[in-house]
Amino acid sequence: MGNKIYVALLHHPVLNKQGDIVTTSITNMDIHDIARTCLTFGVQNYYIVNPLESQRQLYNKLISFWQSEIGQNYQEDRAKALSIVRFRSTLQDVIKDIKNQEKYDPVNITTTAKVRDGQISYENLQSDLSEGDRPVLLLFGTGYGLSEEIHQSADYTLEPLFGVGEYNHLSVRCAVALILDRLVPKNKGGKHGFVRGSQQAAS
Amino acid sequence: MGNKIYVALLHHPVLNKQGDIVTTSITNMDIHDIARTCLTFGVQNYYIVNPLESQRQLYNKLISFWQSEIGQNYQEDRAKALSIVRFRSTLQDVIKDIKNQEKYDPVNITTTAKVRDGQISYENLQSDLSEGDRPVLLLFGTGYGLSEEIHQSADYTLEPLFGVGEYNHLSVRCAVALILDRLVPKNKGGKHGFVRGSQQAAS
Repeated sequence: MGNKIYVALLHHPVLNKQGDIVTTSITNMDIHDIARTCLTFGVQNYYIVNPLESQRQLYNKLISFWQSEIGQNYQEDRAKALSIVRFRSTLQDVIKDIKNQEKYDPVNITTTAKVRDGQISYENLQSDLSEGDRPVLLLFGTGYGLSEEIHQSADYTLEPLFGVGEYNHLSVRCAVALILDRLVPKNKGGKHGFVRGSQQAAS
Repeated sequence: MGNKIYVALLHHPVLNKQGDIVTTSITNMDIHDIARTCLTFGVQNYYIVNPLESQRQLYNKLISFWQSEIGQNYQEDRAKALSIVRFRSTLQDVIKDIKNQEKYDPVNITTTAKVRDGQISYENLQSDLSEGDRPVLLLFGTGYGLSEEIHQSADYTLEPLFGVGEYNHLSVRCAVALILDRLVPKNKGGKHGFVRGSQQAAS
Protein backbone atom coordinates (compact mmCIF):
# COMPACT_ATOMS: atom_id res chain seq x y z
CA MET A 1 0.00 0.00 0.00
CA GLY A 2 1.82 3.08 -1.20
CA ASN A 3 -1.04 5.55 -0.68
CA LYS A 4 -0.36 8.68 1.29
CA ILE A 5 -1.99 8.48 4.71
CA TYR A 6 -3.70 11.18 6.74
CA VAL A 7 -5.17 10.80 10.23
CA ALA A 8 -7.98 12.83 11.82
CA LEU A 9 -9.09 12.75 15.46
CA LEU A 10 -12.66 14.01 15.71
CA HIS A 11 -13.99 15.80 18.80
CA HIS A 12 -17.30 16.39 17.03
CA PRO A 13 -19.64 14.78 16.04
CA VAL A 14 -18.90 12.02 18.55
CA LEU A 15 -21.00 10.08 21.05
CA ASN A 16 -21.10 10.28 24.82
CA LYS A 17 -21.86 7.37 27.15
CA GLN A 18 -25.61 7.78 26.56
CA GLY A 19 -25.22 7.84 22.77
CA ASP A 20 -25.90 11.57 22.38
CA ILE A 21 -23.84 13.61 19.92
CA VAL A 22 -21.42 15.86 21.77
CA THR A 23 -18.22 17.84 21.38
CA THR A 24 -15.30 16.61 23.49
CA SER A 25 -12.24 18.56 24.62
CA ILE A 26 -8.80 18.23 23.14
CA THR A 27 -6.18 16.65 25.42
CA ASN A 28 -2.47 17.14 25.58
CA MET A 29 -1.81 13.40 25.51
CA ASP A 30 -3.92 12.78 22.39
CA ILE A 31 -2.00 15.50 20.56
CA HIS A 32 1.46 14.26 21.54
CA ASP A 33 1.06 10.49 21.49
CA ILE A 34 -0.78 10.40 18.20
CA ALA A 35 1.56 12.93 16.56
CA ARG A 36 4.57 10.79 17.55
CA THR A 37 2.89 7.66 16.23
CA CYS A 38 1.87 9.38 12.98
CA LEU A 39 5.38 10.66 12.31
CA THR A 40 6.78 7.20 13.05
CA PHE A 41 4.48 5.65 10.45
CA GLY A 42 4.98 8.31 7.78
CA VAL A 43 1.55 9.96 8.06
CA GLN A 44 1.42 13.23 6.07
CA ASN A 45 -0.70 15.22 8.50
CA TYR A 46 -2.53 14.52 11.72
CA TYR A 47 -5.67 16.65 12.06
CA ILE A 48 -7.24 17.64 15.36
CA VAL A 49 -10.89 18.36 14.51
CA ASN A 50 -12.89 20.55 16.89
CA PRO A 51 -15.48 23.22 16.00
CA LEU A 52 -15.01 25.35 19.12
CA GLU A 53 -13.02 28.56 18.90
CA SER A 54 -12.04 28.22 22.58
CA GLN A 55 -10.51 24.81 21.81
CA ARG A 56 -8.60 26.27 18.87
CA GLN A 57 -7.15 28.88 21.22
CA LEU A 58 -6.16 26.19 23.73
CA TYR A 59 -4.54 24.18 20.93
CA ASN A 60 -2.59 27.23 19.72
CA LYS A 61 -1.37 27.84 23.26
CA LEU A 62 -0.14 24.25 23.62
CA ILE A 63 1.54 24.26 20.24
CA SER A 64 3.21 27.63 20.71
CA PHE A 65 5.04 26.28 23.77
CA TRP A 66 6.51 23.45 21.71
CA GLN A 67 7.44 25.79 18.88
CA SER A 68 9.25 28.10 21.31
CA GLU A 69 12.94 27.75 21.99
CA ILE A 70 12.19 26.37 25.44
CA GLY A 71 9.88 23.69 24.03
CA GLN A 72 12.29 22.69 21.27
CA ASN A 73 15.16 22.38 23.73
CA TYR A 74 13.07 20.56 26.29
CA GLN A 75 12.12 17.73 23.96
CA GLU A 76 13.14 18.08 20.33
CA ASP A 77 11.49 14.81 19.28
CA ARG A 78 8.09 15.88 20.57
CA ALA A 79 8.40 19.28 18.92
CA LYS A 80 9.28 17.58 15.62
CA ALA A 81 6.22 15.34 15.76
CA LEU A 82 3.96 18.36 16.26
CA SER A 83 5.10 19.80 12.92
CA ILE A 84 2.65 17.48 11.12
CA VAL A 85 -0.34 18.37 13.34
CA ARG A 86 -3.10 20.68 12.03
CA PHE A 87 -6.19 22.02 13.78
CA ARG A 88 -9.40 22.18 11.71
CA SER A 89 -12.99 23.02 12.67
CA THR A 90 -14.75 20.32 10.68
CA LEU A 91 -14.17 17.10 8.79
CA GLN A 92 -15.14 18.97 5.60
CA ASP A 93 -12.24 21.36 6.18
CA VAL A 94 -9.89 18.40 6.56
CA ILE A 95 -11.07 16.84 3.30
CA LYS A 96 -10.71 20.16 1.48
CA ASP A 97 -7.20 20.52 2.85
CA ILE A 98 -6.15 17.07 1.65
CA LYS A 99 -7.69 17.66 -1.78
CA ASN A 100 -5.72 20.89 -2.08
CA GLN A 101 -2.51 19.05 -1.30
CA GLU A 102 -3.09 15.84 -3.24
CA LYS A 103 -5.45 16.84 -6.09
CA TYR A 104 -7.78 13.94 -5.20
CA ASP A 105 -10.43 13.55 -2.51
CA PRO A 106 -9.22 11.14 0.16
CA VAL A 107 -10.66 7.68 0.66
CA ASN A 108 -12.40 8.13 4.02
CA ILE A 109 -12.06 5.22 6.41
CA THR A 110 -13.78 5.21 9.80
CA THR A 111 -12.64 3.15 12.78
CA THR A 112 -14.61 1.78 15.71
CA ALA A 113 -14.30 -0.77 18.50
CA LYS A 114 -17.86 -1.91 17.75
CA VAL A 115 -18.94 -4.58 15.30
CA ARG A 116 -20.94 -3.07 12.41
CA ASP A 117 -22.38 -4.47 9.20
CA GLY A 118 -20.10 -4.25 6.18
CA GLN A 119 -16.81 -3.62 7.96
CA ILE A 120 -13.72 -4.30 5.88
CA SER A 121 -10.76 -6.42 6.96
CA TYR A 122 -7.21 -5.06 6.90
CA GLU A 123 -6.27 -7.43 4.09
CA ASN A 124 -9.18 -6.45 1.86
CA LEU A 125 -8.64 -2.75 2.52
CA GLN A 126 -4.96 -2.99 1.62
CA SER A 127 -5.89 -4.84 -1.54
CA ASP A 128 -8.57 -2.27 -2.52
CA LEU A 129 -6.29 0.68 -1.85
CA SER A 130 -3.36 -0.75 -3.76
CA GLU A 131 -5.36 -0.42 -6.96
CA GLY A 132 -5.40 3.38 -6.80
CA ASP A 133 -3.26 6.22 -5.59
CA ARG A 134 -5.86 8.33 -3.81
CA PRO A 135 -4.79 9.55 -0.40
CA VAL A 136 -6.27 7.77 2.59
CA LEU A 137 -7.91 9.50 5.55
CA LEU A 138 -8.25 7.42 8.72
CA LEU A 139 -10.92 8.79 11.05
CA PHE A 140 -10.85 8.24 14.81
CA GLY A 141 -13.41 9.35 17.37
CA THR A 142 -12.91 10.63 20.89
CA GLY A 143 -15.53 10.13 23.62
CA TYR A 144 -17.55 6.99 22.90
CA GLY A 145 -16.78 6.97 19.20
CA LEU A 146 -17.73 8.55 15.88
CA SER A 147 -21.37 9.41 15.18
CA GLU A 148 -23.50 7.27 12.89
CA GLU A 149 -23.50 10.11 10.33
CA ILE A 150 -19.70 9.97 10.02
CA HIS A 151 -19.69 6.20 9.55
CA GLN A 152 -22.47 6.45 6.95
CA SER A 153 -20.63 9.08 4.92
CA ALA A 154 -17.33 7.14 4.85
CA ASP A 155 -16.06 4.93 2.02
CA TYR A 156 -15.08 2.14 4.41
CA THR A 157 -15.32 1.18 8.06
CA LEU A 158 -12.45 -0.93 9.35
CA GLU A 159 -13.16 -4.03 11.41
CA PRO A 160 -12.54 -3.60 15.17
CA LEU A 161 -9.17 -4.40 16.69
CA PHE A 162 -9.19 -7.49 18.83
CA GLY A 163 -6.58 -9.05 21.03
CA VAL A 164 -7.20 -12.45 22.57
CA GLY A 165 -10.64 -12.24 24.10
CA GLU A 166 -13.81 -10.22 24.44
CA TYR A 167 -12.21 -7.15 25.97
CA ASN A 168 -11.17 -4.62 23.32
CA HIS A 169 -11.35 -1.28 25.09
CA LEU A 170 -8.12 0.25 23.87
CA SER A 171 -7.41 3.95 24.26
CA VAL A 172 -7.71 5.92 21.02
CA ARG A 173 -3.97 6.61 21.31
CA CYS A 174 -3.15 2.90 21.26
CA ALA A 175 -5.78 2.18 18.59
CA VAL A 176 -4.17 4.68 16.20
CA ALA A 177 -0.78 3.02 16.74
CA LEU A 178 -2.09 -0.51 16.14
CA ILE A 179 -4.11 0.41 13.05
CA LEU A 180 -1.19 2.22 11.42
CA ASP A 181 1.12 -0.68 12.27
CA ARG A 182 -1.28 -3.15 10.67
CA LEU A 183 -1.92 -1.01 7.56
CA VAL A 184 1.45 0.52 6.74
CA PRO A 185 4.08 -1.73 5.12
CA LYS A 186 6.17 -2.99 8.02
CA ASN A 187 9.33 -2.19 9.75
CA LYS A 188 11.46 -0.86 6.94
CA GLY A 189 13.74 0.93 9.39
CA GLY A 190 15.58 -1.99 10.88
CA LYS A 191 16.12 -3.62 7.55
CA HIS A 192 17.14 -0.61 5.48
CA GLY A 193 19.59 1.21 7.63
CA PHE A 194 17.32 3.96 8.93
CA VAL A 195 18.35 3.17 12.46
CA ARG A 196 21.54 5.15 12.87
CA GLY A 197 21.74 7.53 15.78
CA SER A 198 18.17 7.06 16.92
CA GLN A 199 17.45 7.90 20.51
CA GLN A 200 14.60 6.85 22.68
CA ALA A 201 12.21 9.68 23.38
CA ALA A 202 10.94 10.35 26.87
CA SER A 203 8.00 8.13 27.61
CA MET B 1 3.53 -18.53 21.41
CA GLY B 2 1.32 -19.82 24.17
CA ASN B 3 3.45 -18.56 27.06
CA LYS B 4 1.76 -16.51 29.75
CA ILE B 5 2.72 -12.86 29.45
CA TYR B 6 3.43 -10.29 32.15
CA VAL B 7 4.27 -6.62 31.62
CA ALA B 8 6.22 -4.30 33.92
CA LEU B 9 6.62 -0.54 33.61
CA LEU B 10 9.74 0.56 35.48
CA HIS B 11 10.05 3.99 37.10
CA HIS B 12 13.45 3.01 38.50
CA PRO B 13 16.21 2.41 37.50
CA VAL B 14 15.60 4.47 34.34
CA LEU B 15 17.55 7.17 32.55
CA ASN B 16 16.89 10.89 32.30
CA LYS B 17 17.80 13.07 29.31
CA GLN B 18 21.41 13.30 30.50
CA GLY B 19 21.74 9.53 30.95
CA ASP B 20 21.68 9.62 34.75
CA ILE B 21 19.76 6.97 36.66
CA VAL B 22 16.61 8.45 38.17
CA THR B 23 13.20 7.58 39.57
CA THR B 24 10.26 8.91 37.55
CA SER B 25 6.71 9.54 38.74
CA ILE B 26 3.76 7.35 37.96
CA THR B 27 1.15 8.89 35.64
CA ASN B 28 -2.55 8.30 35.38
CA MET B 29 -2.39 7.78 31.62
CA ASP B 30 0.36 5.14 31.82
CA ILE B 31 -1.70 3.19 34.33
CA HIS B 32 -4.97 3.31 32.34
CA ASP B 33 -3.78 3.03 28.75
CA ILE B 34 -1.36 0.20 29.41
CA ALA B 35 -3.85 -1.66 31.64
CA ARG B 36 -6.47 -1.52 28.87
CA THR B 37 -3.94 -2.72 26.29
CA CYS B 38 -2.73 -5.52 28.58
CA LEU B 39 -6.23 -6.81 29.24
CA THR B 40 -7.00 -6.66 25.50
CA PHE B 41 -3.98 -8.85 24.76
CA GLY B 42 -4.50 -11.32 27.58
CA VAL B 43 -1.60 -10.21 29.80
CA GLN B 44 -1.78 -11.85 33.25
CA ASN B 45 -0.62 -8.86 35.30
CA TYR B 46 0.67 -5.40 34.56
CA TYR B 47 3.17 -4.24 37.19
CA ILE B 48 3.86 -0.61 38.04
CA VAL B 49 7.36 -0.60 39.54
CA ASN B 50 8.37 2.31 41.74
CA PRO B 51 10.46 2.20 44.94
CA LEU B 52 8.97 5.32 46.55
CA GLU B 53 6.44 4.95 49.35
CA SER B 54 4.86 8.30 48.37
CA GLN B 55 4.26 6.95 44.84
CA ARG B 56 2.66 3.82 46.27
CA GLN B 57 0.31 6.01 48.26
CA LEU B 58 -0.56 8.02 45.15
CA TYR B 59 -1.17 4.78 43.23
CA ASN B 60 -3.43 3.45 45.98
CA LYS B 61 -5.40 6.69 45.92
CA LEU B 62 -5.93 6.49 42.14
CA ILE B 63 -6.89 2.85 42.24
CA SER B 64 -9.28 3.23 45.15
CA PHE B 65 -11.34 5.71 43.11
CA TRP B 66 -11.77 3.15 40.33
CA GLN B 67 -12.57 0.40 42.79
CA SER B 68 -15.27 2.54 44.41
CA GLU B 69 -18.88 2.39 43.30
CA ILE B 70 -18.54 5.81 41.67
CA GLY B 71 -15.51 4.72 39.64
CA GLN B 72 -17.08 1.43 38.59
CA ASN B 73 -20.24 3.18 37.43
CA TYR B 74 -18.34 5.97 35.73
CA GLN B 75 -16.39 3.69 33.44
CA GLU B 76 -16.74 -0.02 34.03
CA ASP B 77 -14.27 -0.97 31.27
CA ARG B 78 -11.48 1.09 32.80
CA ALA B 79 -12.20 -0.29 36.25
CA LYS B 80 -12.05 -3.83 34.83
CA ALA B 81 -8.65 -3.23 33.21
CA LEU B 82 -7.22 -2.02 36.52
CA SER B 83 -7.99 -5.38 38.11
CA ILE B 84 -4.81 -6.82 36.55
CA VAL B 85 -2.54 -3.96 37.71
CA ARG B 86 -0.13 -4.47 40.62
CA PHE B 87 2.23 -2.01 42.32
CA ARG B 88 5.66 -3.33 43.32
CA SER B 89 8.74 -1.59 44.70
CA THR B 90 11.38 -3.38 42.64
CA LEU B 91 11.84 -5.61 39.63
CA GLN B 92 12.99 -8.35 42.03
CA ASP B 93 9.61 -8.19 43.75
CA VAL B 94 7.89 -8.58 40.37
CA ILE B 95 9.96 -11.62 39.46
CA LYS B 96 9.28 -13.19 42.87
CA ASP B 97 5.57 -12.57 42.39
CA ILE B 98 5.51 -14.25 38.98
CA LYS B 99 7.51 -17.22 40.27
CA ASN B 100 5.01 -17.65 43.08
CA GLN B 101 2.14 -17.72 40.58
CA GLU B 102 3.75 -19.75 37.80
CA LYS B 103 6.33 -21.96 39.58
CA TYR B 104 9.01 -20.84 37.09
CA ASP B 105 11.13 -17.70 36.85
CA PRO B 106 9.97 -15.55 33.95
CA VAL B 107 11.99 -15.05 30.79
CA ASN B 108 12.93 -11.37 31.15
CA ILE B 109 12.75 -9.35 27.94
CA THR B 110 13.76 -5.69 27.84
CA THR B 111 12.55 -3.20 25.25
CA THR B 112 14.17 -0.04 23.91
CA ALA B 113 13.89 2.40 21.02
CA LYS B 114 17.69 2.31 20.69
CA VAL B 115 19.74 -0.06 18.60
CA ARG B 116 21.86 -2.34 20.79
CA ASP B 117 24.12 -5.29 20.10
CA GLY B 118 22.48 -8.68 20.25
CA GLN B 119 18.85 -7.60 20.03
CA ILE B 120 16.42 -10.31 19.05
CA SER B 121 13.81 -10.07 16.30
CA TYR B 122 10.13 -10.73 16.96
CA GLU B 123 10.24 -13.87 14.81
CA ASN B 124 13.24 -15.35 16.60
CA LEU B 125 11.84 -14.51 20.01
CA GLN B 126 8.53 -16.18 19.20
CA SER B 127 10.38 -19.22 17.95
CA ASP B 128 12.63 -19.40 21.07
CA LEU B 129 9.70 -18.98 23.45
CA SER B 130 7.54 -21.56 21.74
CA GLU B 131 10.01 -24.24 22.82
CA GLY B 132 9.21 -23.75 26.51
CA ASP B 133 6.37 -22.80 28.75
CA ARG B 134 8.10 -20.36 31.08
CA PRO B 135 6.15 -17.16 31.64
CA VAL B 136 7.38 -14.08 29.81
CA LEU B 137 8.03 -10.70 31.46
CA LEU B 138 8.19 -7.72 29.09
CA LEU B 139 10.04 -4.78 30.64
CA PHE B 140 9.37 -1.18 29.63
CA GLY B 141 11.12 1.95 30.86
CA THR B 142 9.72 5.40 31.59
CA GLY B 143 11.81 8.56 31.24
CA TYR B 144 14.55 8.00 28.65
CA GLY B 145 14.49 4.25 28.97
CA LEU B 146 15.71 1.35 31.07
CA SER B 147 19.15 1.48 32.69
CA GLU B 148 22.07 -0.48 31.29
CA GLU B 149 21.97 -2.74 34.37
CA ILE B 150 18.41 -3.84 33.57
CA HIS B 151 19.28 -4.62 29.95
CA GLN B 152 22.37 -6.55 31.05
CA SER B 153 20.45 -8.70 33.50
CA ALA B 154 17.70 -9.61 31.00
CA ASP B 155 17.48 -12.81 28.96
CA TYR B 156 16.67 -10.92 25.74
CA THR B 157 16.39 -7.39 24.42
CA LEU B 158 13.84 -6.92 21.65
CA GLU B 159 14.80 -5.01 18.51
CA PRO B 160 13.40 -1.45 18.35
CA LEU B 161 10.04 -0.75 16.76
CA PHE B 162 10.29 1.07 13.47
CA GLY B 163 7.70 2.53 11.18
CA VAL B 164 8.74 3.88 7.80
CA GLY B 165 11.71 6.13 8.47
CA GLU B 166 14.27 7.29 10.99
CA TYR B 167 11.80 8.71 13.49
CA ASN B 168 10.76 6.12 16.09
CA HIS B 169 9.91 8.15 19.15
CA LEU B 170 6.73 6.41 20.20
CA SER B 171 5.20 6.95 23.61
CA VAL B 172 5.69 4.03 25.99
CA ARG B 173 1.89 3.60 25.93
CA CYS B 174 1.89 3.04 22.17
CA ALA B 175 5.06 0.94 22.29
CA VAL B 176 3.45 -1.52 24.72
CA ALA B 177 0.44 -1.84 22.39
CA LEU B 178 2.54 -2.45 19.28
CA ILE B 179 4.87 -4.94 20.94
CA LEU B 180 1.99 -7.00 22.36
CA ASP B 181 0.22 -6.91 18.99
CA ARG B 182 3.35 -8.17 17.25
CA LEU B 183 4.10 -10.87 19.84
CA VAL B 184 0.70 -12.25 20.80
CA PRO B 185 -1.06 -14.59 18.35
CA LYS B 186 -3.38 -12.32 16.40
CA ASN B 187 -6.91 -11.26 16.34
CA LYS B 188 -8.70 -14.31 17.62
CA GLY B 189 -11.74 -12.25 18.62
CA GLY B 190 -13.22 -11.52 15.23
CA LYS B 191 -12.76 -15.04 14.03
CA HIS B 192 -13.96 -16.95 17.05
CA GLY B 193 -17.12 -15.19 18.00
CA PHE B 194 -15.78 -13.17 20.92
CA VAL B 195 -17.28 -10.02 19.49
CA ARG B 196 -20.81 -10.15 20.78
CA GLY B 197 -22.08 -7.12 22.63
CA SER B 198 -18.77 -5.30 22.69
CA GLN B 199 -18.92 -1.59 23.31
CA GLN B 200 -16.36 1.03 22.54
CA ALA B 201 -14.76 2.44 25.66
CA ALA B 202 -14.30 6.16 26.13
CA SER B 203 -11.14 7.30 24.39
